[in-house]
Amino acid sequence: MPAPESVGVSEVLRLRAEPLTQAAFAPFGDVIEPAAASRHYPINAGSAERFHDVMRIDTGTADGHTVLSLVFGQPVTLPARLRLLERHPLGSQSWLPLDGQRFLIVVAPAGEQWALADVRVFVSDGCQGVNYARGVWHHPLLSLGEAPGRYVVVDRDGPGDNCEERPLPRVVELVI
Amino acid sequence: MPAPESVGVSEVLRLRAEPLTQAAFAPFGDVIEPAAASRHYPINAGSAERFHDVMRIDTGTADGHTVLSLVFGQPVTLPARLRLLERHPLGSQSWLPLDGQRFLIVVAPAGEQWALADVRVFVSDGCQGVNYARGVWHHPLLSLGEAPGRYVVVDRDGPGDNCEERPLPRVVELVI
Repeated sequence: MPAPESVGVSEVLRLRAEPLTQAAFAPFGDVIEPAAASRHYPINAGSAERFHDVMRIDTGTADGHTVLSLVFGQPVTLPARLRLLERHPLGSQSWLPLDGQRFLIVVAPAGEQWALADVRVFVSDGCQGVNYARGVWHHPLLSLGEAPGRYVVVDRDGPGDNCEERPLPRVVELVI
Repeated sequence: MPAPESVGVSEVLRLRAEPLTQAAFAPFGDVIEPAAASRHYPINAGSAERFHDVMRIDTGTADGHTVLSLVFGQPVTLPARLRLLERHPLGSQSWLPLDGQRFLIVVAPAGEQWALADVRVFVSDGCQGVNYARGVWHHPLLSLGEAPGRYVVVDRDGPGDNCEERPLPRVVELVI
């Protein structure tokens, strides 16, 4: 993990994104990419390859169920200023880009408290998606590129309050 | 639905694809597109719009569970020759293109028997996906375009035999 760069004059903490790899992201959930599959095999008489089961869907808590949704997100400009982190205590949530757009992923470990020193920043290559494990703190969508980007989101619907937000304790900006 | 064109000389039945709309596809499952959402609302302080719950995930039969997989499919050339129809008696299965590629969707109603006269052919615009309802007969992937296309697939994993195939009774080719 790159060390946070403190830019003293403006009291802005500037964090630099690291590449998104399964090993680095493992404490926070899954990277949605072929290499994450539990197995892969040819289908359709060999004309296609299936990379099976690339993430852990965890939506059954408190009578929840899995839903698939589409999200259209405006792009952010860099340096991106962070607002807050949120978590979903009742289920996992995945984001997969549909337009090849890169996006930033800001996470902190599950738990009641997190500190800025715990925050990690990753950047998807535009093919990779992420699946936040239940309870993992994360920033709302930070889509990159020139145009609005489409995402497919798989998460939980059902009874109960499944979103909790915490503001950041100081100004944080992200660069790639 | 366009009438099948019979090309007598070669005994090839040639079917023409129709546009993929929710109304036309309703007997077979869901079209994955924003208009299919049960509701939509702004998220992330208004910088994104969520189109919530665009399809019916039906994977719980016989102790099944939902999995998300990636499929890389070689494109077909037109006219595409059909091989067979298959069905998944234990769960729904969705296909959503990740590279903006169009694809052909060939379906027949759920049930023990189907006839060629029941077969419908649709073409996705490259943004739309489909979710085959449990038991609906469909052809394996027919990806269009020049390059292999990536798809995200949401379907069932679990015990039991969830794939049944039936060959076509005669040669059928598709055109757009």
